[in-house]
Parts: sequence; structure tokens; C-alpha cells
Amino acid sequence: MGARLDVILSPTEALPPCEVWLVVDVLRATTTMTVFFECGGKKMLPVESVEEGLALKKSLGSGWLLMGERKGLPPQGFDLGNSPLEAANACVSRYEGAIMTTTNGTRALLAAASTGAPVLIASARNAFAAVDAALSSGSSIGILCAGRLGRVSLDDSACAGALVDIALEKEPKILFSDGARIAHSVWHSYGKNMEEALKDASHAHFLLGLGFGDDIRLACQLGVSASVPKLAFISGRWTVLL
Amino acid sequence: MGARLDVILSPTEALPPCEVWLVVDVLRATTTMTVFFECGGKKMLPVESVEEGLALKKSLGSGWLLMGERKGLPPQGFDLGNSPLEAANACVSRYEGAIMTTTNGTRALLAAASTGAPVLIASARNAFAAVDAALSSGSSIGILCAGRLGRVSLDDSACAGALVDIALEKEPKILFSDGARIAHSVWHSYGKNMEEALKDASHAHFLLGLGFGDDIRLACQLGVSASVPKLAFISGRWTVLL
Repeated sequence: MGARLDVILSPTEALPPCEVWLVVDVLRATTTMTVFFECGGKKMLPVESVEEGLALKKSLGSGWLLMGERKGLPPQGFDLGNSPLEAANACVSRYEGAIMTTTNGTRALLAAASTGAPVLIASARNAFAAVDAALSSGSSIGILCAGRLGRVSLDDSACAGALVDIALEKEPKILFSDGARIAHSVWHSYGKNMEEALKDASHAHFLLGLGFGDDIRLACQLGVSASVPKLAFISGRWTVLL
Repeated sequence: MGARLDVILSPTEALPPCEVWLVVDVLRATTTMTVFFECGGKKMLPVESVEEGLALKKSLGSGWLLMGERKGLPPQGFDLGNSPLEAANACVSRYEGAIMTTTNGTRALLAAASTGAPVLIASARNAFAAVDAALSSGSSIGILCAGRLGRVSLDDSACAGALVDIALEKEPKILFSDGARIAHSVWHSYGKNMEEALKDASHAHFLLGLGFGDDIRLACQLGVSASVPKLAFISGRWTVLL
């Protein structure tokens, strides 16, 4: 049987069975994770709440970075925001790891993990490497878009469309779901250009208003990274590592 | 303030505040409803379950048609399926009205109704008239796609994109949400042609397999109808009428 590719555009939908997940939150969680590992980060612990993040940092100590956002900004007591630029500038390789909580992305990761299938972190930056890794892991691939505040987002739909496009190049007979066709339509309608798509994305406008234009530029760089972090269940905790 | 247009692509998302709703289930509930009223149907009572439909038919009597589907086919004891072709051939104007239950569409209608804002029935057939009616009813328009089995569907996304396109022609300064931009991308990527979009839609393939090709052809006819049914709360019950 040939390969199948599904895209789940809305984070509120029940997850169908898949052999491997690519989770996308291009603005900014999965982009930040991609950059963190590009820059030598060792491991990352995704947690659901700010309180859990603060408690974990207290117990793990100063060898760990506490990263994340609520309403786009780092909560009080956090070392870094959910920012690929800050991750790139923080010498993350000096740390044992990072704890991370975000509004949309880390929750989508944990939802995908709960299905029991392998979960890979995908972004525009690692798009080619992530599709390669997914195609090597299974013939039924699900791309889960984190979306924004429980809604379908243009930024993640466009990035998912880029992944669909790459998968189609590598596996011309791959079968698409409706969600995959919609994402593919979005990607092509913006000329296969993340910057064009993000000009129309409400989340990008919100981040620009907070001064995160450099993060958006990093999020738009297609295929510049070979880093494909994945989730693993280690010592009773979901952990992101290479 | 200018007009705003949101498209809710997934039936699982929480509904945002809007001044008026256009509900789309192009395959087939809202297409069937459009045709029912085109053909002189007087009123329609949407109900959530097959059991509720059967009980209501029993109490209302033989002057009422019982219509609908589960897994695409009319449940036992129903007079008609959820079929625009059957509605067109049934001399519906002779009846007092119809009771209808479908898997996706009637549920989306009732969800939109629960917000308290006016709800209009939209399909490709009544696309121009439905957009006109919505723009006359409020400056904040929500298009709710019924989708399929709790998932985003290509057929409803494409039809929503057609409605977005028409709204943009009539109100060039209308503001779009991410969902509206995604739907618009889908519509344009299929050459603004419902038949082309439906060739790729999983729900269309399912219906073709059941022999409903004529229903699909009726669903694809863009702008042929001026009938825009709406929901009203009458005698303690949601009722669709013109």
C-alpha cells in the first residue's frame, strides 16, 4: 500500500490513527525548538502550565533554562520567551536542557504524543529533513497544526502545505486527505513562499506588534535546518531531543 | 467600522461572536435545503437524531416529509434521503413541511443557532443571494463549515471560499480572518470551480460510490438559486423557512 498523508488543520479535532506525527507550530514553538537543537541544545521538557514550568525549574536547578510564553511574552520568572532569536543567542549548548511551555505548540505536541505514535517537530526551517524523517518512520503520516487559540491558523496551514509539497515531490503517488489538499492549496496560493503567507496571518501581525519581526524572519527560512527533534518518554516525562 | 468575514473551517471549533451566520454543508444538507425551498417547500424542522425525527413525524402526521441520512443513506422509515435530487422530484410544495436530520449539516445549523445570532442556509447554488442576505443582516459575518465527521472538509472549504470571493467583490474593503483566507485560497486553487474542487473531496468520492452523482452535480451549480432559507425559533422549535 502506498503512503498516505493527512493534515489536521484544527487543534480541536480528534486525532485519527497515524504511524508518525509531524507537529507544526511555525509561530513560534516548533521553530524555536528547531533552532534550539540547531544551536546545540541537548534536551527540552515540554510542560502544559506556567506553574509546572516554574516548579520543574526549581527542582532541576540553574543548569536548566525556563522558556515559553503566554500571550506572546515570557511569563514572570522565565529565562527566555518562546523565541527562536533568543534561543539562538542564549548559548543553549551550555545548559543541561530547557523547560518549555507555550499556548498552542507544546499542547499539540502532547496531544500527538498521547496517540502512542512517534512525534517529530516540524517547521519551515527543517521542512525537508522533517519530511524525510517522517517518510522513513511510517507510511501513514499525520501533520498536526497547532493553530492559534483553538482555531485553524494561516501560518501553520501554509507550513503544513510546504510539508505536503515536499512529500509529494519525494513520493509522487502519496494519497492526500482533504486537510492535506487544503494546506497544499494555501501553500501554492501564496507562491510557495512563507513570507507572503505570513503577511496575511493574524498571528504574525500580533507578533509584529510585540516587536518579534526577527522571529518571523527566522520562521520563514525554508529548509535551512537538518535538525529534526522528536519526542521520547524518558524517566516518566515527555522529552524533546534529537 | 468596515465589514468583517470569518470562516470557521472545523465544526469542532468554538464559535466566535458574529452578527450573522452562513452555514455551509454543500454535500449535501444545505444544498438539499436550498433546493427544497426553491421547489416550493414551506418549512423544515431540523432535528439531531433519527429517533427524534421518527417521533416528530408520528406526531405531525402524513402531511410532513421525513428526510435525512446516516452514512449517506435514508434511515429506515424515512420518506427521502438527504438528497437535493429527491427533494426536487418529491413535489415538496404539496406538504406542510419536512423534518430533517443529517450527520453534519443540521448539527452545524443548531450550533450556530445556539449563539443567538441569525442563521442563514448557504450553498453553492444560492451563493450570491446568501452573501447578499448576510451583508444586509450584519457587518460581522461568520461562515460555519459543517465539515465531515468532525473534520475539516474540502467541499465545504471550497464553497466557503466561493462565498468569501463573492463578499470581496461586493465589499472590497471587507476584513478577512485566517479561516477566510484559507477558504479563499482553496477556491482560487481549484479555478473557482466547484466541480474541480469536488473531484478531490473525500465526501464526494463517498457519495459517488453510493450512486449520488446527480446530487453532486446539483451541489456544484453556482448561484442558480435566489432561495436563502433561514432559521427561526417558532413554537419552541428551530424551524427553517424563507
